[in-house]
Amino acid sequence: MKRPRVVIAGAGFGGLTCARGLKYKPVDVTLVDRNNYHLFTPLLYQVASALLDPGEIARPVRQLIRPLANADFRQASITGVDLDGHQLITDHGAIAYEYLVLATGAQSDYFGNSSLAEHTLGLKDLDEGLAIRNHILSQFEASRWTDDPKQRRAMLTFIVVGGGPTGVEMAGATSELIRLVLRKDYRDLDINEVRVVLIEAAPHVLVQFVPSLREAALHSLRRKGIEVMLETKVEAVTDSAVKLAGGEEINARTVIWTAGVKASALAQATGVPLVRQSRIKVEPSMQIRGHPEVFVIGDLAGATDGGAPLPMLIPVAMQQGRYVAKAIRDALADREPRPFEYRDPGIMATIGRNSAVAQLGSVHLSGFPGWVFWLAVHLVNVVSFRSRVVVLVNWAWEYIFYDRPVRLIVRART
Amino acid sequence: MKRPRVVIAGAGFGGLTCARGLKYKPVDVTLVDRNNYHLFTPLLYQVASALLDPGEIARPVRQLIRPLANADFRQASITGVDLDGHQLITDHGAIAYEYLVLATGAQSDYFGNSSLAEHTLGLKDLDEGLAIRNHILSQFEASRWTDDPKQRRAMLTFIVVGGGPTGVEMAGATSELIRLVLRKDYRDLDINEVRVVLIEAAPHVLVQFVPSLREAALHSLRRKGIEVMLETKVEAVTDSAVKLAGGEEINARTVIWTAGVKASALAQATGVPLVRQSRIKVEPSMQIRGHPEVFVIGDLAGATDGGAPLPMLIPVAMQQGRYVAKAIRDALADREPRPFEYRDPGIMATIGRNSAVAQLGSVHLSGFPGWVFWLAVHLVNVVSFRSRVVVLVNWAWEYIFYDRPVRLIVRART
Repeated sequence: MKRPRVVIAGAGFGGLTCARGLKYKPVDVTLVDRNNYHLFTPLLYQVASALLDPGEIARPVRQLIRPLANADFRQASITGVDLDGHQLITDHGAIAYEYLVLATGAQSDYFGNSSLAEHTLGLKDLDEGLAIRNHILSQFEASRWTDDPKQRRAMLTFIVVGGGPTGVEMAGATSELIRLVLRKDYRDLDINEVRVVLIEAAPHVLVQFVPSLREAALHSLRRKGIEVMLETKVEAVTDSAVKLAGGEEINARTVIWTAGVKASALAQATGVPLVRQSRIKVEPSMQIRGHPEVFVIGDLAGATDGGAPLPMLIPVAMQQGRYVAKAIRDALADREPRPFEYRDPGIMATIGRNSAVAQLGSVHLSGFPGWVFWLAVHLVNVVSFRSRVVVLVNWAWEYIFYDRPVRLIVRART
Repeated sequence: MKRPRVVIAGAGFGGLTCARGLKYKPVDVTLVDRNNYHLFTPLLYQVASALLDPGEIARPVRQLIRPLANADFRQASITGVDLDGHQLITDHGAIAYEYLVLATGAQSDYFGNSSLAEHTLGLKDLDEGLAIRNHILSQFEASRWTDDPKQRRAMLTFIVVGGGPTGVEMAGATSELIRLVLRKDYRDLDINEVRVVLIEAAPHVLVQFVPSLREAALHSLRRKGIEVMLETKVEAVTDSAVKLAGGEEINARTVIWTAGVKASALAQATGVPLVRQSRIKVEPSMQIRGHPEVFVIGDLAGATDGGAPLPMLIPVAMQQGRYVAKAIRDALADREPRPFEYRDPGIMATIGRNSAVAQLGSVHLSGFPGWVFWLAVHLVNVVSFRSRVVVLVNWAWEYIFYDRPVRLIVRART
């Protein structure tokens, strides 16, 4: 008898966890992703800030699924779903499924402002992380060629928009890259010409956290020389300036956008109803209404917990991936699945190399203790044992020598 | 008194060695390179074959020259020299010099055959190395989508043209990437559909070596499943086939060109007389005739040793860099420089992970002993202590687990 085919769209934390949950089960699994690797996104900002190389935070999907005898991988861009025909549509052709798990994640949201889309750098995938690294380092090199102080200041002003964990981590890492490392590389650099600015529309950074941790993070950021502008909205961006809502302009050649995020374009392409952030509306069992064979998980899924939308976080995606694997096993056995329930393990954000905030139920850590906790969690969870060794070497190297190993401007041709 | 400015064009082994030779001397040194890093080229094929990440074989020039208090760096593409006006011309502007050292190295030579230039991949810099890695891995992924055996064979045929050390190393590494690693990643791969072909116009591979080592290398290559075609000329390449001189065609989507190399375009741009391989004609003191303030070193320099042209090798470039630093010190002291003399330290090439040939005067090593020697030399000379640790971890990882850590298809956007 032919085994039912489970097609999983997306090899992120959700998709991969789901594939693992189907190990040894009587199904054939096909994972599809536009990249041939799984990305450890929590450390992406360290690629963008020249501390880690791509090989340290990404691992080939095919290598990760080797232990899964019933799983295969196909690299393709996913363009849509033929829900009635039971086919996933990709740029390489269609793949028929008996069960489908949509897990293609999220992308930057510019809220329809095309000047943001055009002139800011995103930090959602590895290519974007490398592009930021190349861009920041190129600005420093270019700044050595100009005698015009205004132009040089624009080259040396680095703006991060968005005070969530990604923005805070990127601003912290950028500031340390400049103050600890590049400052030594550029002997004639006037550090007063360099600005790292974090812009947030809300009155706080890290709004997800309790007030005491928000304050601790803000304090850490400012101590690291980052100008934090709260209650400030970006109206438009050009290739050399940011225009703020009040009319003020900041000359800057580098604007990193972390202030908006929405579900990947696949959500729209499915044609099913969407909820906030363009996420796909799902049943409590993570199914699409009317299509019990189609599940949606992770950032793409508009799931709720007691009425509130679940955040776009790795633990959510992983728990949903595990849940859907179980739901498919239930379906094969003609059992009704129980609704998905999220168990919150807590949230964390790090600010540079020795400070972090962690909120774990009633336990709140900040500063150095928070950072040690952050370090342990990430080192344990980084993609592989080999990466763990290499990442540890790099982190120790930086900690001791204030030096970033991979500040290279590299572009792969073709 | 203003100190004379020494401008060094190129931060490869020649240029960097020359800058180091001018440490503490009463000159200001400006190193110029189109990349912001120095590349450890002997291991470039390991980036191309997915064993190392760029950060392991490249290091920022600014970091390397930190100990040189009188040296600075500028990133720019060098486009020419105004010999009479004493200026180096770059895409960012001109730099005036009192002494100039040209050390921009070599590039691929296609002997005027535009089909080669268009449809083959070079292996001369980091961007090209990454492009090869992306291309090889993409062919494997694409091959999973086709049911046409002819098309699939073309995707899985990897041709390396040129049986010199670069070609031999690349062919060996590609074969091992496929046979030891990718074979496990692609469960449904028919290994008989995969070909790695090394094409050489001469009757031998590694013509620089003594006959016994050539034979040992040939034997090693064939044992690793590489088809070695000797006395075979490539006439033309399309995006799906290689046409050989006899009329035979091989369907292949991947052709790596290592068969021709010539001096970088700067040689032509200087307008001074050139010798074989477009190298700049130099005096025995590495100076350009009529311009005693301009020196040429490394692959760019057409120096001879007892009438024979010096090969394009790192030891030549480094010895000339050291020599020219001394010659500039002599010039400052109004001393005549003695002519450059090359001391040959021997040559090496490796064929995969456990075989190499080394020719050190009358000592000839091959097979596993040759490889151990190769390993020791490269590990000691790799760019930095941190890289040494990381490279060692990666090499050991591969040796024990037959696994390449970084087989990622990554492209930096912008």
